[in-house]
Amino acid sequence: MPLYDLNGKNKYYTLYCCIRGDILRGKLKSGERLPAKRALAKDLGVSVVTVQLAYEQLLAEGYVTSRERSGYFVERVLPQENFLVQREERGAHKKPPEPETEPESGHGRSQPYADDHTQYIADFVKGATPAKLFPFSVWTKLTRAVLADCGEHLLERVPCDGDAELKAEIAAYLYRSRGVDTDPRYIVIGAGAEYLYGVIVQLVGRDKLYAVENPGYATISGAYALNGARFAPVPVGEEGISLGGLKQINADVLHISPSHQFPTGVITPAYMRSRIIEWALGGDRYIVEDDYDSEFRLSGRPLQSLFSLCPERVIYMNTFSKTLAPSMRMGYMALPPALYKKFLKLFSSSANVVPLFEQKTLAAMLKGGYFERHLSRLKNYYRDIRRQTLETLGTLFPDCEVYDTQGGPHLLARLADGYGKDIFDAAKDSGARVKRLSDYFLAPSAEPKKYAVFNYSGVTAEQLAALKFKKYNK
Amino acid sequence: MPLYDLNGKNKYYTLYCCIRGDILRGKLKSGERLPAKRALAKDLGVSVVTVQLAYEQLLAEGYVTSRERSGYFVERVLPQENFLVQREERGAHKKPPEPETEPESGHGRSQPYADDHTQYIADFVKGATPAKLFPFSVWTKLTRAVLADCGEHLLERVPCDGDAELKAEIAAYLYRSRGVDTDPRYIVIGAGAEYLYGVIVQLVGRDKLYAVENPGYATISGAYALNGARFAPVPVGEEGISLGGLKQINADVLHISPSHQFPTGVITPAYMRSRIIEWALGGDRYIVEDDYDSEFRLSGRPLQSLFSLCPERVIYMNTFSKTLAPSMRMGYMALPPALYKKFLKLFSSSANVVPLFEQKTLAAMLKGGYFERHLSRLKNYYRDIRRQTLETLGTLFPDCEVYDTQGGPHLLARLADGYGKDIFDAAKDSGARVKRLSDYFLAPSAEPKKYAVFNYSGVTAEQLAALKFKKYNK
Repeated sequence: MPLYDLNGKNKYYTLYCCIRGDILRGKLKSGERLPAKRALAKDLGVSVVTVQLAYEQLLAEGYVTSRERSGYFVERVLPQENFLVQREERGAHKKPPEPETEPESGHGRSQPYADDHTQYIADFVKGATPAKLFPFSVWTKLTRAVLADCGEHLLERVPCDGDAELKAEIAAYLYRSRGVDTDPRYIVIGAGAEYLYGVIVQLVGRDKLYAVENPGYATISGAYALNGARFAPVPVGEEGISLGGLKQINADVLHISPSHQFPTGVITPAYMRSRIIEWALGGDRYIVEDDYDSEFRLSGRPLQSLFSLCPERVIYMNTFSKTLAPSMRMGYMALPPALYKKFLKLFSSSANVVPLFEQKTLAAMLKGGYFERHLSRLKNYYRDIRRQTLETLGTLFPDCEVYDTQGGPHLLARLADGYGKDIFDAAKDSGARVKRLSDYFLAPSAEPKKYAVFNYSGVTAEQLAALKFKKYNK
Repeated sequence: MPLYDLNGKNKYYTLYCCIRGDILRGKLKSGERLPAKRALAKDLGVSVVTVQLAYEQLLAEGYVTSRERSGYFVERVLPQENFLVQREERGAHKKPPEPETEPESGHGRSQPYADDHTQYIADFVKGATPAKLFPFSVWTKLTRAVLADCGEHLLERVPCDGDAELKAEIAAYLYRSRGVDTDPRYIVIGAGAEYLYGVIVQLVGRDKLYAVENPGYATISGAYALNGARFAPVPVGEEGISLGGLKQINADVLHISPSHQFPTGVITPAYMRSRIIEWALGGDRYIVEDDYDSEFRLSGRPLQSLFSLCPERVIYMNTFSKTLAPSMRMGYMALPPALYKKFLKLFSSSANVVPLFEQKTLAAMLKGGYFERHLSRLKNYYRDIRRQTLETLGTLFPDCEVYDTQGGPHLLARLADGYGKDIFDAAKDSGARVKRLSDYFLAPSAEPKKYAVFNYSGVTAEQLAALKFKKYNK
């Protein structure tokens, strides 16, 4: 009898789940070597590629590490082991930006480029999904269908937590795409991420301290400040957020993007995820799992969510502004049952802030599979643009070092110290607008390796070609 | 040469403006008698009805008072006079609810009817505009036109303050319908009134004290509390809010509905408006002029806004949830320039929370005159329902006393003390669901005259007929 029984379509995902289960249940112990790929493939009657994909997924999520020429080894994942893990013990299998280690005169939350009137060939800062990729004809069709089907129901007041049909479609989508198993009841629809941050403050408390990732989106900490709550930055390193830093500031809430941190691209490894959950369970604490951009993981399956590990302590949230269009203000969150109860208490006499028409149209897009087809096209497009961005970087700066976790749509790059100028100036000279990694620091902090962030979601193939052309004609 | 030169269509409104101007400029002095209606009509070559309408408008706004059989007299309006005005001096030309005078064991912010499973014939509490009145075919047509005309522009990120076209249309509409002359730049679009209350707290300050009308909407004070600001109720009397009460609590912001207070229906008279503005100018204070339901003034022109008197200190706001549909979350506010600047500073990196599609459709409705035609139909409908409500009340309770300022869609009614039961119980017995005026008190307060609030916006002619029918068959 083979080790694992793999039926159905997604063989590699099933295999990944089986191995992950064995690791979490302690059947596969920390330090243990996984079977050789070829041998396991033969044993299970699947292709080597299937095993390879499963192992890569486990590697990306931090369940295993890989040692060159010796294979894959189980990481320390289980909570009881976690407390013993010292950072020094872990092998350096990744090249992280390490922004918090060497102190240096940092940069604040400044808005660079405000006075910059340079004419750029390509803008790696703005990062808007190209409008031409939006399924406009589908959307038009659904819009008309919603008008015809719903009629005067479209005029009815929407319950405070949103349209029930959309809530159900989002729950089903989260299960399909993300493995997030949530009761549709506990989903709340809101007018975009920033609106939802405000609701979170109202639910969890304005007197609480909110820990945010540093570097990170200034809009997140800005939203907490705007809503009258205190926030404190916590450094992000190669393993995600610094747990020591988090404990030091005595925060009540942690706002985190474990699947794909912006701008570092760091993926929080599995054993760190367990420890973060433990932190939350150690007190009356909550985690906001901000899954923005997680759809753009360009290889492998999506990463397991914190929410799945502990739905009582994690608020899972995301928006459709990037995957559909920024003009559609639609975000959602899956709340822990206790917070959902409080939401009803506070908002039951209010109507939902998103127009019903928009909610019904999005529900139809999800229901008909249009959204996921669109997302798949978008990912193909980004894979292409990413490849061309890497090529262009290689052409412009042959000794450029890239840090990229394939969790698009952005990557980090830097030039070797002896290059004479840093990549920010070099990119500007070449006609590419970028931001320094340090521009995303919320507090003065170290950034020894002078990375720049290349957000390629708003850059076209033509612009990338023009950059190369300029290099050749220099 | 006649006293006033009346050309153009709206003769009565022109006459009203002329007389108002004379009062404000001091040409017509406090206590002076207006010319007799018949004589002035003859003098100006207009009908007596025209003069009558102009005088009624002046009366409704408190520029003049009427004394039975002696005519209309100019009120004390000018600021320099206002300080001398004692409340006792003013004639009692109205029958107000006087809710703040006689202390009595009050009612809290309770939600009555939560456990009430009575089957009512007519619901005078809910108050939703009937869906059948919504111009659905126009809206469908405009929706399609917007899709075709705007195309991919609909996907673009909307600036933080809203779509420029909609802002311009709202400014034009406010000028046409309300005489509010505002720079479209300073208008901010938001996802409904409650969302905008939150933005106001972010703009004016969470540490400020917000005065709210008592009785009033619990959602208003609730929104301030939810956003972490303090609020304090100020009693509403026959002249609107109590200035003494306002000064006593040392508030920084006053949230007020001067054109039509809910639930009392009180209209703040002109001389009180000047004094409220003076209060704001006497410190770093702001007024939130919440013009909700002001469109439903069923006779005469709309009342002059506080915003027009002092755009530097007044935030003018309203929504389309009642006039269009509650499922369309669309509100707006006209900000004082200083607050608009602050808004840009706080929100410039955020997108507006209302979908562009909705904004473009509403802009098209306003531009094509569809909204105002709809509003006019709605007012005709409400005039009718109001008349039938009054008839029904007269049939059910022949000695019922009604307090109604024609600022629909609700009115107050009470039964004489000797009736045996109060109107709340009597209405319930007849099959009509109402709320006691005291249910709208935010703090325990007096309500000696036991009024009930009849919100007739969600009641149909059939339901009113059924109420009468039940009475006849008792």
